[in-house]
Amino acid sequence: MMRILTGIQSSGKPHLGNILGAILPAIELSKKPGNESFLFIADLHTLTSLRDGEQIRSNTLSIAAAWLAFGFDTDKNYFYRQSKLAAYHTELMWYLNCITPFPMLANAHSFKDKSAQMAQVNAGLFTYPVLQAADILLYDAELIPVGKDQRQHIEMTRDIAGTFNRMAQKDIFVIPEAAINESVMTIPGVDGNKMSKSLNNYIDIFLPEKDLLKQIKKIESDSTPLEDPKDPATDITFKLFSLLASPEETAEMHANYIQGGYGYGHAKQALHEMMLRYFKDAREKFDFYINNPDVIEEKLAEGERKVEPIAKQTLGRAREHFKF
Amino acid sequence: MMRILTGIQSSGKPHLGNILGAILPAIELSKKPGNESFLFIADLHTLTSLRDGEQIRSNTLSIAAAWLAFGFDTDKNYFYRQSKLAAYHTELMWYLNCITPFPMLANAHSFKDKSAQMAQVNAGLFTYPVLQAADILLYDAELIPVGKDQRQHIEMTRDIAGTFNRMAQKDIFVIPEAAINESVMTIPGVDGNKMSKSLNNYIDIFLPEKDLLKQIKKIESDSTPLEDPKDPATDITFKLFSLLASPEETAEMHANYIQGGYGYGHAKQALHEMMLRYFKDAREKFDFYINNPDVIEEKLAEGERKVEPIAKQTLGRAREHFKF
Repeated sequence: MMRILTGIQSSGKPHLGNILGAILPAIELSKKPGNESFLFIADLHTLTSLRDGEQIRSNTLSIAAAWLAFGFDTDKNYFYRQSKLAAYHTELMWYLNCITPFPMLANAHSFKDKSAQMAQVNAGLFTYPVLQAADILLYDAELIPVGKDQRQHIEMTRDIAGTFNRMAQKDIFVIPEAAINESVMTIPGVDGNKMSKSLNNYIDIFLPEKDLLKQIKKIESDSTPLEDPKDPATDITFKLFSLLASPEETAEMHANYIQGGYGYGHAKQALHEMMLRYFKDAREKFDFYINNPDVIEEKLAEGERKVEPIAKQTLGRAREHFKF
Repeated sequence: MMRILTGIQSSGKPHLGNILGAILPAIELSKKPGNESFLFIADLHTLTSLRDGEQIRSNTLSIAAAWLAFGFDTDKNYFYRQSKLAAYHTELMWYLNCITPFPMLANAHSFKDKSAQMAQVNAGLFTYPVLQAADILLYDAELIPVGKDQRQHIEMTRDIAGTFNRMAQKDIFVIPEAAINESVMTIPGVDGNKMSKSLNNYIDIFLPEKDLLKQIKKIESDSTPLEDPKDPATDITFKLFSLLASPEETAEMHANYIQGGYGYGHAKQALHEMMLRYFKDAREKFDFYINNPDVIEEKLAEGERKVEPIAKQTLGRAREHFKF
């Protein structure tokens, strides 16, 4: 049995980039026989940048609805809000804080990147790698799928866990491995940069049809006239289309581009239709869940009941070391 | 009703300096009508410097035995171990972390003093003023008696509480006041410096009679011959004697010093007798408690049952703001 753990920042509604780059691969991985996935909404981490309760709650519902819409199996796996286990996460964090060297945090890339605007950095943001370590160690997670930018944090988690185990002369914590996906897809946003909420260049596939079309029409393109051939290799609309389409459909679109007489407007219409078709089931389910927050609440509450004994047991091992 | 809060580091057994400088004045204050004292063993803070469970447990028993021996009234007041309420303290700490500017901690005197040996500083030590803020705010404490060196930390607590209240547009937390005792007694150790565990110059009044005498004999003195007059103003033995003795007894000892023919050995014998007399009741009670750890355990457990609903209620107010 391989125990995989993934935390999801609840800073916004999931967009196409999140879905193709993170949600669908994670669900694939969770389905493999012998795997069990711990998937949690990292709403304690969210507080380092967002402290509006209404906003956090609304983001939590959107994220949960998206994962459920794409078929994350909450019976086989574990699906929970970090805030509902906050006491376990934060207590373990304190114990780890006391064995984490200050320079390890001060020298972290993620902190150095922010040190230009030091006045805006809060103590939560500075110490969040330690909370992350607690998130992982609390559930004896073995494999942590992360992007390259998070590799250092998993290294820190390994260091901290090793320090604790050596101090206790006992294997209190499982030492996790990072699974760095080197070939992770970069999904372009409407301006060609990596799709992200902060750049406001994202496509929200859960929007009503007309609003979705409006977002798709914002995709940038060059000024090649309608009748001229176009270069699919550099076009954002083509790239997004090909991520969803079958090889045959992609080949057909490719042919349209290079033969000319096919405009970007046509391509965007085709992308819109493709999205509605490709995500038909997920869009319906998302709407169902978002309109039935009680169903989401019940699924999360069930996951929280399932993980609590695990968290309690691991924290107990740490407390025992201190004779607490 | 004035709610007073005091945390005690559990880094060692209380010595004469702790007793005269902290324990007795705090017990005095707790007895005043209208006051209620929250007194806790700050064993989560202890972890920033000491991580040996046996040692922490033994220190906890000694400290609790000392406070009980001097008559701290656990029915009127609240007496508890921080570690037994760890989930509440650390969860609130995380919420406060997220609104505490990094520079506030980096510029704290207590941190700057340690920055020379930065490699030895852990993340717990860096963020402990935030845990301290949680310790205080969790119980709606109004008055925090502290030494001058802790004044800045109470200011931080006030800042953090004010920030949270403004963010919530609601009085979630009580803003505490520091009670700085400017006239606090400095108790000299056997070498004349301030008595402290770290300088290893302390007198442990709970030792068996002979061992106590051995410690007293280590008190430094000048080399004035037995027959010559001695200067009480500069002598450590005289100073310690006068802290315990009545004005008449002090006057008598003073006369012995200045008339000559009275040696430091005589003075030390007199100090030993004074200590055994002055602390007779406390020594007996201390021995009783230390030999009956179950009684201590029960008193602490009762205090922990009494404070838990208060901690839960305050933390609930913070969680409510985030809709957790």
